[in-house]
Formats: sequence, C-alpha cells, structure tokens
Amino acid sequence: MTDVNPGLEPVRKALQDLSIEDNPAIVKQKSRDFFWYSPVLKKQLDRVTGDLVVTPRTEDEVIRVLKACFEHDVPVTVRGAGTGNYGQAMPLAGGVVLNLAELNKIKEIGPGRVVCEAGALISAIDDATRPGGQELRLHPSTYRTATIGGFIAGGSGGIGSIRWGGLRDLGNVISARVITMEAEPRILDMTGADLAKVLHAYGTNGVITEVEMPLTAAYDWVDVIAGFDTFMDAARFADALGMQDGILLKELGVISAPIPHDYFLRHRKYLRPDQSVCVMMVAPFAMPALAAFAEHRKADLVYRADTAEADEKKGLPPVFELSWNHTTLRGLRVDSTITYLQILYPYPDQMKKVDAMTKLFGDELPGHLEFVRFDGNVTCFGLPVVRYTSDERLEEIIRLHEEAGCPVFNPHRYTLEEGGMKQTDEQQLAFKRESDPKGLLNPGKMIAWDDPDFDFSADGPFLFQGLR
Amino acid sequence: MTDVNPGLEPVRKALQDLSIEDNPAIVKQKSRDFFWYSPVLKKQLDRVTGDLVVTPRTEDEVIRVLKACFEHDVPVTVRGAGTGNYGQAMPLAGGVVLNLAELNKIKEIGPGRVVCEAGALISAIDDATRPGGQELRLHPSTYRTATIGGFIAGGSGGIGSIRWGGLRDLGNVISARVITMEAEPRILDMTGADLAKVLHAYGTNGVITEVEMPLTAAYDWVDVIAGFDTFMDAARFADALGMQDGILLKELGVISAPIPHDYFLRHRKYLRPDQSVCVMMVAPFAMPALAAFAEHRKADLVYRADTAEADEKKGLPPVFELSWNHTTLRGLRVDSTITYLQILYPYPDQMKKVDAMTKLFGDELPGHLEFVRFDGNVTCFGLPVVRYTSDERLEEIIRLHEEAGCPVFNPHRYTLEEGGMKQTDEQQLAFKRESDPKGLLNPGKMIAWDDPDFDFSADGPFLFQGLR
Ligand SMILES: Cc1cc2nc3c(=O)[nH]c(=O)nc-3n(C[C@H](O)[C@H](O)[C@H](O)COP(=O)(O)OP(=O)(O)OC[C@H]3O[C@@H](n4cnc5c(N)ncnc54)[C@H](O)[C@@H]3O)c2cc1C
Ligand SMILES: Cc1cc2nc3c(=O)[nH]c(=O)nc-3n(C[C@H](O)[C@H](O)[C@H](O)COP(=O)(O)OP(=O)(O)OC[C@H]3O[C@@H](n4cnc5c(N)ncnc54)[C@H](O)[C@@H]3O)c2cc1C
Repeated sequence: MTDVNPGLEPVRKALQDLSIEDNPAIVKQKSRDFFWYSPVLKKQLDRVTGDLVVTPRTEDEVIRVLKACFEHDVPVTVRGAGTGNYGQAMPLAGGVVLNLAELNKIKEIGPGRVVCEAGALISAIDDATRPGGQELRLHPSTYRTATIGGFIAGGSGGIGSIRWGGLRDLGNVISARVITMEAEPRILDMTGADLAKVLHAYGTNGVITEVEMPLTAAYDWVDVIAGFDTFMDAARFADALGMQDGILLKELGVISAPIPHDYFLRHRKYLRPDQSVCVMMVAPFAMPALAAFAEHRKADLVYRADTAEADEKKGLPPVFELSWNHTTLRGLRVDSTITYLQILYPYPDQMKKVDAMTKLFGDELPGHLEFVRFDGNVTCFGLPVVRYTSDERLEEIIRLHEEAGCPVFNPHRYTLEEGGMKQTDEQQLAFKRESDPKGLLNPGKMIAWDDPDFDFSADGPFLFQGLR
Repeated sequence: MTDVNPGLEPVRKALQDLSIEDNPAIVKQKSRDFFWYSPVLKKQLDRVTGDLVVTPRTEDEVIRVLKACFEHDVPVTVRGAGTGNYGQAMPLAGGVVLNLAELNKIKEIGPGRVVCEAGALISAIDDATRPGGQELRLHPSTYRTATIGGFIAGGSGGIGSIRWGGLRDLGNVISARVITMEAEPRILDMTGADLAKVLHAYGTNGVITEVEMPLTAAYDWVDVIAGFDTFMDAARFADALGMQDGILLKELGVISAPIPHDYFLRHRKYLRPDQSVCVMMVAPFAMPALAAFAEHRKADLVYRADTAEADEKKGLPPVFELSWNHTTLRGLRVDSTITYLQILYPYPDQMKKVDAMTKLFGDELPGHLEFVRFDGNVTCFGLPVVRYTSDERLEEIIRLHEEAGCPVFNPHRYTLEEGGMKQTDEQQLAFKRESDPKGLLNPGKMIAWDDPDFDFSADGPFLFQGLR
C-alpha cells in the first residue's frame, strides 16, 4: 500500500469520464467497513485504504472499470455500503474501490420476485415493492443502509431467517448477473446451484451487477417485546414459539439482562435492569395467537406496537434495530470495549447448549440469540456480547464453544475461510481461475487462492458449504 | 331412527318459512358423507339418515333452527358439504340436518385475513381473495367441494401444511363465531386458545357461522411430478426437499408404485408402471432452485406444468387432486375393495420408520406420504392404500404400526376420541355442558359425553390435543 501501483494512472485516464474520487480522506473512508466491531481486526486493518474510488452508474461502466484494471493489473474491491463486519470490503492491496451505490435501479417487480441493480438499498427495494403488497424475505438489520449486492456477497441472513432460513439456502436468491475480471469481461447469468459460487464470496470472483430476489407478502409487522426474569426463560419461550408453525413471525431474538436495560436506551422505560427479553416481529393478524401463546407460557408482553400510542412509538427504533448485529452496535455505543461472537447452537440440543454456555461464561458473555430455520429445523445462532479482555481469552472462549459442540463463525477474521462462513473447494477455486485469472478481485480474502498448498479438507462446519 | 321424534312436527312448523327438505331420498343423501372409504364404517353407518334438512340463509335463521330444536329436543347435525371421511356429518340419532351451503358470503378481505360465512366453498374464498394477491394458507384436497366451516370442524390440514402445519396449530384460524344450542342461543366470538374447543369437534358443541382465516401470498403454483425407481428413493427426496427452507412449496407428497400408474389414469402417460412419484406444488419463482435441487439429487422431473403445453395441461387434474385423500379416492374408483389408513411418522426417525413399514407390509399397503410441518419439524403422515381383506387384519395392521412407534389416526371410527384426532378432557366436556346442555348437537360422536365413566387419561397421541 505504500508503493504506488503503476497501473493507477493509466486506469484513471481510461476512466476519466466516470465519477472518480481520489481525495485520500474520502478514499480512506470509503475503504472501511464495520471491521472495528472486532478489536482483532481493528489492529490489523486500521490502515487499509484504496487509491481511487470509482462510482459507475451503469453496468457498461462497471465493465469498463474491470477492463481497464485488468489491463493495468490494478486490484478492484467492490463496495456496497460498507456495513460488513469483517473487513470484507476493505482493499488490502489498495487499488480501486468500486463503489456500487449509484447502480441502484429497481428494474422489474412481479409476483414473488424483484429484479434490481446490486447497489439498490435494501429498504429502497421494499419501498418499491410494498405498494404491491410484497417485500423481501430476508434483510440484515442494516436494512436502511446496506445494499442488496453487499448483502448477497457479504452477509448471511437476519430478519426473516426465522421463516426462510438464510442466504445459503437454495431459493433465497433467484439469479444474479455477474461480471468477470478478464481482458474481455463476460456477463454470467447465474441461477440454481451456480449461485453458490458468488454468494458470500466477498466479490472475489466477479462483480454482481443485478440480482433477482424472491418476494413474499408484506405486512405491517408488529414489534413486540416480552420480558422475563431469566435469560433461559426468555430462550425457552422463543425456542417454543419458533416451533409454532401457524404463528407468522419475521424476527425472533432473545437478549440477556443487563443488555436491554443498559444498551437499548430508548426502550429502557419498558424494562427492569434485571430483565431479559424476547424481541419479535409478528404479523398483525397473528397477534391473537401470539397473545394466547404468551399467556399460556406466562410471558409478560412489556411492549407491543399494536396497542402503543402513536407518539410513544415515534421515539423508538424498530425492533429489528435491536437485533442481530445491531444489538452489538448499541452496546458499542455505550461501552466501546465490548465485542461479540457468532455461534451456532445446533438442533436439537440448542437449549441444553445455550444453558451450558450461559453457566460457563456468566456476565463475561451476556447472551444474545437469534432464532432461525437452519437446514429445515428451528434453532438459534448466538451473538453474545463479549466483555473483551485479550485476544488470548477471545481465542479461548471460541475454543471452549467449539469443544462444547457449538461451532463459531469467527467474526475476528477477514478471510473467507477462517471466518468459517465460506468453504472453498476445488470447484470454487476453479471458478475463480476463470472469472478472475489474475487474482485482482478483493485480493487477500481467499486463502485457497493465495496458498497453493491450502488444505480444502479443513474441518469445521461452514455456513456456505463447498460446491460439491 | 325408527321411532319418529315427536319434536319434529313442532320444529317443522316453527321453521315453515325456511328452506326445508323432507323427501326421504334427498334427506338420506344429505345425511351421508364419504364414510364409505372405510369398509368398517360402511357397515355401521349405511342406514343412517336424518329426518329433515333445513338450509338457513342467515345467522338469524341458524339461531331460529337451534332454538326450535332445543325447545323440542330434536338433534341437530351440521353439514357443510359432506365430504368428511369418518361419518362426521352423519346424524346418528336422526333429527335435523343443518345444511350450511347457503350461508356462504365472503364478508371482508384485508391484508393477511378474510372473514366469511362458514358455508363458503374453500375455492370460492380463494377466488375472492386472489385478485388481491392473497389466498388461504391451507386447504383440503376437496378444495373445490368442501366448505370452510366443515374443514375447521371436521378436517385437519392438507395442501399448505408443508409450510404452515395444520388446523391444530395456533394461528391457522384467527377467530370463529359460534352459536350455542340453548333455549336462548348465545353468539360466542372465539379466538386464541379458545378456538381449540370448536376445532375438529364435529359440530358437537356449537354451530360455526362465521370464521376469520389467515391469508398468505397467492401464486400460480406449478404442478411438478418427479419419478423414482423405488418408493424409498422418492421418500428420501421429499424428506430432503421439505427441509429446504428457501424453496417455497405448497404440497409435497410421495406415492408408491403401482398407485400412480394404476390409479392416476390421466397422468399415466408420464409414468412407468414401476415408478413411484413425488408430487409437488412449487412457487413459480422457486422453479430454478427446485430444478437445481432435483438435478443434484438425480431426480427425474417427469412432468412440470410450467413447461407443459396448454392442451396437454387441460386434460389433467391438478396435483392436489392426486394427493391427500384424493389418492385414495382415485384408487377406490379403480378398485372399490381398497381402503386406507392415516399414520404419523414422528420426527426425527420418519424415514427409518417409513422404510420399516414398507418392508413389513409390501404391496398390501402401497405407500403414500404427505410431508407437513408438525410441531416445528418437517415430517410426514402416511395415508397408505390398504388392500383390505378383513376387519381383523385391518386392526392388526394398525396395531403393528402403533407397536413400531407410528401413531394411527384411525379413519375407521366415527367418534372424536377413537379416531385419535381429538382429545377430550374436562375442559372440553365442561364447554359442551354450557354450549349444548341437552346434548343435541351431533349426538353419538363424543364418547366423553355419552359415557360418564370415560377415562380422559386414555393414552395415544392426539392430533388436536386437550385444552390444558
Ligand atoms: C449494525 C450492523 C448490523 C448488521 N446486521 C446484519 C444482519 O442482520 N445480517 C447480515 O447478514 N449481516 C449483517 N450485518 C453485516 C452487513 O451489514 C450486511 O451483510 C450487509 O448486507 C452488507 O451490505 P453492504 O452493502 O454494506 O456490503 P459491503 O459491506 O459494502 O460489502 C460486503 C462484501 O460484499 C462485497 N460486495 C459488495 N457488493 C458487491 C457486488 N455487487 N458484487 C460482488 N461483491 C460485492 C464487498 O466486496 C464485501 O466483500 C450487519 C452489520 C452491521 C454494522
Ligand atoms: C377426496 C377427499 C379428499 C380429502 N382431503 C382432505 C384433506 O386434504 N385434508 C383434510 O383435512 N380433509 C380432507 N378430506 C376430508 C374433508 O373433505 C375435509 O375435511 C373437508 O374440509 C370437510 O368439509 P365439508 O364442508 O365437506 O364438511 P362436512 O363433511 O360437511 O362436515 C365435517 C364435520 O364438521 C361439522 N361441521 C360442518 N360445518 C360446520 C359448522 N359450520 N359448524 C360446526 N360444525 C360443522 C359436521 O357436522 C361434521 O362433523 C377429504 C375428503 C375427501 C372425500
């Protein structure tokens, strides 16, 4: 990053009619994401910056950028909104940051499907489809800031996963247009099993310019919060509620005391300091069923948006901005020394494992669960707050989880493989050889590319599994 | 049934301005359902008939009928379309058949919900909601003939259960208006946990006049049939497909050779005699994912409606009329000596159990599975064709299933309890004492009412469980 890439000037010249930014402060800002959630990545990536930000407005312009950069051996790192948590969008080798924020047209809406450009904001897609009674199945809690392309290339699931599983599941993306990084970039129309190549690949094997996503029925989801005396009471309530096939939810999360009271400042008035909560988004017409279920389980509904006054609601963030990685964000705003982990509690022992880990770590890891469908079952991920002390202790906490049968998708690693999210294999590597023969796309993120001796048989479950 | 009920004449007089039918041939016809699926029930119920059929057009008229019958001690058995399979709608004690076919208005459609009268045909409800992009979550395969009230009071689930579970699940009915059988009939608005009282209660504790049902997004579902060399191949394919959280299906069934070729006459051209099939209804936008999944699993898609020619499709019944109890119906049309069973293969050993039963019974019970969500997991019911030989053998087949850990919901019994569908308990009985103090509603169907020594602790899993 200190040596100037000699390809930069010819690239700048070839693209001079495009929108290019080279002010170092702005370039650095556009080279960062939410990597600072992790004290480990913060040390490793703090100085990373690209050299130029190019902001294409059309697919043709994307192709021109890739062609020029290929010719002159300039790395290209795609950027959606830069809300990833693992430094995914950070250009380790400098070069061009390809900012897709302006490639954001919504092109077609049909029953059960929407076609849009990759840089479209997720909430903007819903804004366009909602008048027709439809919305996206899944969105990250960064609904209002993230792009759909960034979600597919760098995210995994979130709100809606209690109903639909994750992006890893066949059917949650219908198709994608992908531009390769070659002398003559090709346009690939990927669908079905092929999509696995570009999902959660951090833009290492092509630039997604357009996606077709499934839609589902849109509702005025009702935010509901139930309070419990203990974390495990809240967890067991959510675990049972997730199994209710007839109660339509879009979000089902559980957050341990003292997080809700300490970090959810605008909801504090509903909560006791020692209260753990279950947060839900419920279809309006499912509220009688939800209320019956809550009563049967003696759950205390401390907040329900369907009966709250209008001005009461005005000041509150939506429930989805208390959940997933927003829980951690709210924590970081109050206490910048915390961090987090990402754990899978595999079905069917999820409650037993959650209980064991809760007992083992106590207030060092205040619990946070997100319930999802995972391979056909309802189970939960853990995104506990970690009261960070040292990298060594963090590693130990991870090891203790893994030894207890709870895989960790380590958010303190910036490579595809080490994060445990994406499994690479011969097929994945072969595809990269075709789509990015010079290895210019987001260099440094795929170990299998950089290390010819990489052992694909590496154990550990992967969220996005290998291609065969 | 041979003694004339002295209350009949005063009732007829009190209701003379209503639509009343007393032609014995027509009354007998309107006193029957599909009880003849069962050789056992056929012997027991063949001579059952009511005395009068009254066809109210409004809720007020329903109330008048109940009042008059209460006053004169005349039994009332509610009838939707009479498509039940267990003699549910058959008036064991004669009296009035209360035919709700004309109480069929669709009253209100909103996002995620429809309010309609109980006698509305299920397909008519969808016809009304589809222009707004919505449809019912669940319907029996008797979609085009059955009423919504009859489904709720006498059915359990069917098409859509792979996504939403069954009528037993909280949230799959929003609310119901129920008229009690008293001197002054009351109108009860039932919702939440209360609904369990009238679900699958065969109209023994009130007359449902209006229901509010949840709606979901409507699609032009694509009928798909995959062919397999063995039944277990088809079963394992379906079992894995059901676990795909991102592939939206409305129906997922498996039918063993030789049933498809022998009984699905209009589909015969697609099938080899030795082929077992998986039948599916797939959301159009999920077809690329479905095709990828099928290819990965080496499944042969012998028919898919999205690529079939228009005139090819014209002659074919929809896939949902090959499934659930329609499979048996198509069999009975070809071979009237067969019958069927209803089995639950409990998660997570469903495939092992299906395999064991398939090996045990061979062609005496050609397999038929319907995949559903059940208590939060994906598993299957069995509705095998039974090559019936004797009542004793039928009982033995049931016993062998139960001994192998596969509960049977016995379709050869006409009481609520013996069928294993509905658990009665003190609460259920107490509700009947209030809503039907004289026991005039569908007499003879609830053992707990007729037998003061009835043992509620009776074992066996029940589909619709007790109230606490
Ligand atoms: C507060 C907070 C909450 C979050 N909640 C969730 C959550 O609930 N679920 C979840 O999955 N994630 C979550 N995340 C992570 C992240 O916000 C999402 O994954 C988001 O969808 C990323 O979108 P983006 O547009 O910001 O992508 P970016 O961060 O810009 O990019 C993500 C990755 O994709 C690549 N990329 C971007 N666009 C393209 C493209 N068009 N073609 C090829 N590659 C591309 C980038 O190079 C990068 O590697 C959260 C993050 C934060 C900070
Ligand atoms: C070919 C075939 C396929 C079938 N497939 C399925 C299936 O997939 N899933 C399934 O669940 N069932 C199935 N069934 C059974 C049956 O068709 C359904 O349950 C159907 O919904 C019953 O509706 P109906 O209007 O015919 O009710 P009826 O048979 O008229 O009545 C059913 C019961 O409910 C009572 N009842 C009717 N209306 C009311 C009311 N308004 N208030 C109170 N009580 C009332 C009756 O007294 C009776 O006890 C099938 C039957 C056949 C013959």
